[in-house]
Amino acid sequence: MAGSDRVGPAAVRKVGTVGSWDLEADVVVVGYGCAGACAAIAAREAGADVLLIERASGGGGTSANSGGLIYMGGGTPVQQAAGFEDTPEEMYKFLMAALGPDPDEAKIRIFCDESVAHFHWLEAHGVPFKRTFYDEPGMEAPTDDCLVFSGGEDGHPFNLIAKPAPRAHKPQHPGAGGGFLMQRLVAATERSGTRFEFDTRCEHLVVDDRDHNRVVGAVIRQNRTERLVRARRGVVLTAGGFASNHEMVLRHTPLLARCAAFNATEGDDGSGIRMAMGAGADIIRMHAVEVAYPLVPHRLLRGILVNRYGQRFINEDTYFGRLAQEGLLRQDGEMLLIVDNAIYEPTIFGMQAAFVEETVADLERAIGLPTESLQDTVAYYNRFAARGEDPLFHKRPSFLRPLSEPPYAALDCRVGSQDVNVSAVFSGLTLGGLHTLPTGEVLDPDANIIPGLYAAGRTTSGIAGGGYCTGISLGDGTFFGRQAGQRAATASI
Amino acid sequence: MAGSDRVGPAAVRKVGTVGSWDLEADVVVVGYGCAGACAAIAAREAGADVLLIERASGGGGTSANSGGLIYMGGGTPVQQAAGFEDTPEEMYKFLMAALGPDPDEAKIRIFCDESVAHFHWLEAHGVPFKRTFYDEPGMEAPTDDCLVFSGGEDGHPFNLIAKPAPRAHKPQHPGAGGGFLMQRLVAATERSGTRFEFDTRCEHLVVDDRDHNRVVGAVIRQNRTERLVRARRGVVLTAGGFASNHEMVLRHTPLLARCAAFNATEGDDGSGIRMAMGAGADIIRMHAVEVAYPLVPHRLLRGILVNRYGQRFINEDTYFGRLAQEGLLRQDGEMLLIVDNAIYEPTIFGMQAAFVEETVADLERAIGLPTESLQDTVAYYNRFAARGEDPLFHKRPSFLRPLSEPPYAALDCRVGSQDVNVSAVFSGLTLGGLHTLPTGEVLDPDANIIPGLYAAGRTTSGIAGGGYCTGISLGDGTFFGRQAGQRAATASI
Repeated sequence: MAGSDRVGPAAVRKVGTVGSWDLEADVVVVGYGCAGACAAIAAREAGADVLLIERASGGGGTSANSGGLIYMGGGTPVQQAAGFEDTPEEMYKFLMAALGPDPDEAKIRIFCDESVAHFHWLEAHGVPFKRTFYDEPGMEAPTDDCLVFSGGEDGHPFNLIAKPAPRAHKPQHPGAGGGFLMQRLVAATERSGTRFEFDTRCEHLVVDDRDHNRVVGAVIRQNRTERLVRARRGVVLTAGGFASNHEMVLRHTPLLARCAAFNATEGDDGSGIRMAMGAGADIIRMHAVEVAYPLVPHRLLRGILVNRYGQRFINEDTYFGRLAQEGLLRQDGEMLLIVDNAIYEPTIFGMQAAFVEETVADLERAIGLPTESLQDTVAYYNRFAARGEDPLFHKRPSFLRPLSEPPYAALDCRVGSQDVNVSAVFSGLTLGGLHTLPTGEVLDPDANIIPGLYAAGRTTSGIAGGGYCTGISLGDGTFFGRQAGQRAATASI
Repeated sequence: MAGSDRVGPAAVRKVGTVGSWDLEADVVVVGYGCAGACAAIAAREAGADVLLIERASGGGGTSANSGGLIYMGGGTPVQQAAGFEDTPEEMYKFLMAALGPDPDEAKIRIFCDESVAHFHWLEAHGVPFKRTFYDEPGMEAPTDDCLVFSGGEDGHPFNLIAKPAPRAHKPQHPGAGGGFLMQRLVAATERSGTRFEFDTRCEHLVVDDRDHNRVVGAVIRQNRTERLVRARRGVVLTAGGFASNHEMVLRHTPLLARCAAFNATEGDDGSGIRMAMGAGADIIRMHAVEVAYPLVPHRLLRGILVNRYGQRFINEDTYFGRLAQEGLLRQDGEMLLIVDNAIYEPTIFGMQAAFVEETVADLERAIGLPTESLQDTVAYYNRFAARGEDPLFHKRPSFLRPLSEPPYAALDCRVGSQDVNVSAVFSGLTLGGLHTLPTGEVLDPDANIIPGLYAAGRTTSGIAGGGYCTGISLGDGTFFGRQAGQRAATASI
């Protein structure tokens, strides 16, 4: 007789082993980031009694550490006030192109069609948005302004695919808005009548193996004591991704392990994903990651990004998440930003020139790029930039200018060369996770619905199937958190 | 009361629902490709009573449709006879570099250390290897010769990482050797005393939920009749990959769906993977794929491969699987082969020049490449090729020659432009699957061993974590099939 008990989140508990329940609710929400808060509020609005389990001492999660941008569009009041025309159809066309290859079409459809309504829902729950546009793309405004371009919508190739509109909305708060957003969502969740258990780990799901393996509760641990929670209608997992779990990152998306930092808290340990797998859930797109390389101020993007062969590989003025994905996943993290004296300055994160030389040839040699490679690249770039053209990558004319004022310099953006004190370079989060329907219902490997189990946020594979834009995580977390909470509260059981 | 029964391979059957067993064996092997055959033989050799379940009417599977190359090295008799020095350590260094990022080190270690012994095991079971080398890299010999370079071992960058040696061994048979290999392995399996059930689907696993969810059998279907098979010691899943399951391909590795053909049979429907998931198994590296673009004859590789920006991106003389992976996964399937009149001829698959022009500038325009991009690329290439140098990608001097004899032509290798009648272009198979130990034991998401469950071959994530070489699938299928069969036969239960 061998075989030890399996340990870890995937080890589900059977309801037959449960003597009595310690706690009980209609809907049990696991995790108190933006998805969990919205799931709880929506479930309460649908009439359910809701209990929220959170491992930290308060709400926030990784959402609270974010910039606070929420991807919404199709004609929000902010877009209208700022003079941008947008429709759900244009938003849909953009997201299908930017979040692929082959992102979840059903999720993107409803996400776009109901985005304006989602904006109003957030405002009604105390999240204010100033009716202003901030014209520095990619990151949240340092002011309390709202709207920014956050996915390269107005650059090549997306400007040819859909009518460009900025869609990342920041709640009205100076600078990074994630903490403020979560303050407001936490307040709304508390007002909703949700009950809470803090400093509490959710360790396993409880399934009823006599009733289609329905998820009927959870095993939680508080102060070393195990307690059993009954979920009369369902459990909603909104427990984050797995960026903080090094073993899972290596198993599923090893290049991410090379990043210097993660947009994650210790809660992003993949335990929500593993708990659901124990109840039979499928996982998909586990290799998909968000990474970011904010080359700010944007005047630096008048330089050129080159790979290890001295070749350009992207329009430098695109979304900095897109260029970081290209740089990490397709150039193995090998990229350098080449500038001249006219445009150089350190990045706002403190990154300085790693190589400075009087000629491009000397710079090429100092970096160790192949002979004449960078020289040819700069010559080609300059030839066309002088005419305001970029035949290769279609960088906007306003960013085109020959590199011709010595000295020439390179910012070393190679993932292996990172100064970990220069934060936020190639930082990343995981985008893969549970396979869910737009309703938040969780599917098994044969695409059957697992009764009683719901999920949203980075515990799931959301609308980003590969590509990404800033604002997608708070966008689909809040939006599909609501769907999951509502469905859990109302699905027939 | 809602919630219907889940359907599909992942719906495990509990032993408590089994009235009586229809069939019984110590070890039940599911799938009769190379991994299943070797698992069955090894389990028999370890003293187990073995039953093999196969959906087709005979053995073979996808292995039988392959070229028959088996990756082995470290000093095999064929390597020695052909004058190539090799050691397990050099083989290990090469595979760690070629099969990454971050491939399974423990598997590669034992795969290399015991490779010579594996060669002898195969010969002892009736698979003969001629002691000869065939000097056309990448594909199996059209003759009955054995050894070929199959992973770019002798090209950049691998020639700098490990001492180059050819390691792909073809059984002694003219031309493609997969069918012959499987004839011999089938004969050996029959001689071993394995019992068989053909024309039989394995539909679900049976687990003992009173004993750590041990896998104790399988539900099979023959001629519309369900039968229950007890596995006293364990079940070994060797049921292929998921390339023939379009939905799974889209969920896990969508770019593969764009390929024109698959190295797969209809059995590669992912059912083995899903059955195991139902028993709690984890899946890893599900995005990893093998693709191939054999640009043969190799004289064509004196041309240059360019991407949609007219840039080279790889040494053209590398393994054609590596250039296809780069082309599909990193260039979105956009690549063209540029040649001149001196080297052009159609490929052996019948692909002809899609564009022919008298000048490079005209060719660039005809293809629609960015202005002056291809012209610059060819000028740079020619400048160095004339000196026998390739500073960018280090193609071997014997493949370097300026492109200077008009007319100039392009073979259109773009995935969207494929003539599906030109077979074997960007064909692919899946490399992701069950997370297993080198022993074939299957792990759950928390890395616990699932008792009674074993797997090998493309049902698992094998030694190829991302990269690939021809011969790896038959190599790790046969090798780890043996490990799984032996462990299933001998593990304490």
